[in-house]
Amino acid sequence: MNSQSLRDLVREHIREVPDFPKPGIMFKDISPLLANDQLFERVTDWMVEKARGSHPTHVLAIESRGFIFGAPVAHRLGAGFVPARKPGKLPWKTVRAEYELEYGTDALEIHQDAFGPGKRVLIVDDLLATGGTARAACDITEELGATIASVVVVLELGFLKGRERLGNQTIHSLVEF
Amino acid sequence: MNSQSLRDLVREHIREVPDFPKPGIMFKDISPLLANDQLFERVTDWMVEKARGSHPTHVLAIESRGFIFGAPVAHRLGAGFVPARKPGKLPWKTVRAEYELEYGTDALEIHQDAFGPGKRVLIVDDLLATGGTARAACDITEELGATIASVVVVLELGFLKGRERLGNQTIHSLVEF
Repeated sequence: MNSQSLRDLVREHIREVPDFPKPGIMFKDISPLLANDQLFERVTDWMVEKARGSHPTHVLAIESRGFIFGAPVAHRLGAGFVPARKPGKLPWKTVRAEYELEYGTDALEIHQDAFGPGKRVLIVDDLLATGGTARAACDITEELGATIASVVVVLELGFLKGRERLGNQTIHSLVEF
Repeated sequence: MNSQSLRDLVREHIREVPDFPKPGIMFKDISPLLANDQLFERVTDWMVEKARGSHPTHVLAIESRGFIFGAPVAHRLGAGFVPARKPGKLPWKTVRAEYELEYGTDALEIHQDAFGPGKRVLIVDDLLATGGTARAACDITEELGATIASVVVVLELGFLKGRERLGNQTIHSLVEF
């Protein structure tokens, strides 16, 4: 299957849910994609193919839908799996990066010993929207002295220009809206 | 590697964090396990081996650490992946099961079209503690007319007797505390 037909299949397996999580937002529900075992595996194959050339030693997956893609991608790449979580969820000592929301701020945390200098980190999430969480994931990675290998997501909301917040990082998205 | 040595390795890769999430709790942190790509893969291999005989058509993974194990297990079994989430996180129509906490109640939700009659559902989580979330996952599965194939977890806190809340379900845990 070439990437064009994979893209079409993915689009057919996204359910658009209006007014979620709030009025005016058209939510992209990936449940039909995940429920289709062959398609889900093809999507992670695509992520692995895009990421492999950047030689990641670790996958940093963003809570919580990022975990669903990040874990099989880490297996296939032979890379360690590191969860980036919302504040207060990780039990041990953490580093934190804040990011802006429409109103106020939120933050991501990783453990202080998640990876050190010389490591190469692939950032994985389901969606690139405003880029706030991906930017925070890049920031905490660099705070620990590691290098960002690349960023890979399934869906990108291009009109939110999240890509612009990530500077010169290499970003791969399978389907753009 | 036999299961005994796998168990020993997993125990060595669990970090015990005292007083998390509250005083008196010794939290079992699986981060060192996840960061070790070979060990993480061996753990999911073990889950697949235990689950395969129950012929699951779907993996129901419990938010959010259950997602980390459930996704690669679903890939390996050729099963659809279904997330069980905390209330308000899923965008479409859901069914819900409540469960008791020490003080009050919490709940899990799945989408109403997650699976139907005749489907066989493997429930995956990182930890079996009091059994509240696993019980809720079983309840919503049966509410949709599907059958529980088996329940598989990495860690079990045997002293909390979670197993007793799950009736006659087949439950596999790799390491018991």
